[in-house]
Amino acid sequence: MGKRIIVLLSGGMDSATLLWLAKREFEKVWALSFDYGQRHRVELKYAKELARMASVEDHIIVEVPIYRSIRGSALIDESVEVPKEDYPEDEPPVTTVPMRNLNFLAIAGAFADSLEVDHIGIGVHALDTPYPDCRPEFITAAESAINAGSTLVAKRKVRIHVWAPFLGMTKREIALLGKELGVPYEKTYSCYEGTEPPCGQCPTCRQRKEALAGLL
Amino acid sequence: MGKRIIVLLSGGMDSATLLWLAKREFEKVWALSFDYGQRHRVELKYAKELARMASVEDHIIVEVPIYRSIRGSALIDESVEVPKEDYPEDEPPVTTVPMRNLNFLAIAGAFADSLEVDHIGIGVHALDTPYPDCRPEFITAAESAINAGSTLVAKRKVRIHVWAPFLGMTKREIALLGKELGVPYEKTYSCYEGTEPPCGQCPTCRQRKEALAGLL
Repeated sequence: MGKRIIVLLSGGMDSATLLWLAKREFEKVWALSFDYGQRHRVELKYAKELARMASVEDHIIVEVPIYRSIRGSALIDESVEVPKEDYPEDEPPVTTVPMRNLNFLAIAGAFADSLEVDHIGIGVHALDTPYPDCRPEFITAAESAINAGSTLVAKRKVRIHVWAPFLGMTKREIALLGKELGVPYEKTYSCYEGTEPPCGQCPTCRQRKEALAGLL
Repeated sequence: MGKRIIVLLSGGMDSATLLWLAKREFEKVWALSFDYGQRHRVELKYAKELARMASVEDHIIVEVPIYRSIRGSALIDESVEVPKEDYPEDEPPVTTVPMRNLNFLAIAGAFADSLEVDHIGIGVHALDTPYPDCRPEFITAAESAINAGSTLVAKRKVRIHVWAPFLGMTKREIALLGKELGVPYEKTYSCYEGTEPPCGQCPTCRQRKEALAGLL
């Protein structure tokens, strides 16, 4: 099948770096983005521009309406405030979107089966993130579920790999790699508030600033 | 938390039986149905009536628009004909919807996290179905992925169980159990064509007729 990959692209710095790395490592690259009612929906504009710059085969943007019915997360529920401090140490923060990466990977899996693509790329990094669905054990489990449910696997005996090369890296290390790859970080967006310019105070703005210090 | 469950309800005979069984085995039961552009979308009308008869806590119907972008399955792509014979023996049939149960379980997992429900019920049976995402190894893998990605698990240390009590049963055995439970099979619907009355010839009509023979 050649080396083919669908990259989950939010428009943030991690997934942009992954897209540039995928362009180096794979022959054909698709980008997949999600409109899930996120407060920072503006990120999709950045995702589009990044996909265009990376000359992907196709940039698929899909609606994920279920999060309209789910309350309690600061990223999808306007009645919950985005915190203005670092992530908490001990438990999933209020910015957690329940089962987000499993939903995103399941959708990517459907496209992988349909387009006959045997890699799905996701830019999660476990070292400095508080989200349960960014940990290596989640990625491994999701990969098993995708393969067990796949038509491609059942028909062609080809395994689908969930490629998460940043799992063991810090955000700073991702930024250093991206700098080498020529990722246009000025075209990426990460703020949870969804304002332009970014708020500068939410957890993801703080992490981004540290990661990119001296590199822009 | 008490015994709480979200049951995936298509409106067909298997999920209706599961709903009636769940009513017997659990204290609080939610039903979750999917509008994914299926040719047999009329099943949702039956699902609603079944949910009403079962007096569930809530019947959630969610849109799953991704299947509008995916081609090649007879259940979602009007250009592909529904076969008029039994399922093939060796490979996933043209009625396979790629990664359907993983998408449905991922959505159920998001609601489980959000509603704090620790069981998800699914009426798959592996013995006489050709779909990869109805096999026990898929259910086990999906359960692991849900638990690895769950906020509920991370916060409360409660595991989410994917309850699939029909895995080892034939459709006939499900029907016999349902008869005992008083499932109103005349209010269920399974035809892939989506016609009223059902076409009587597609694989699921054939299976249903055999399963219910002498019971209606």
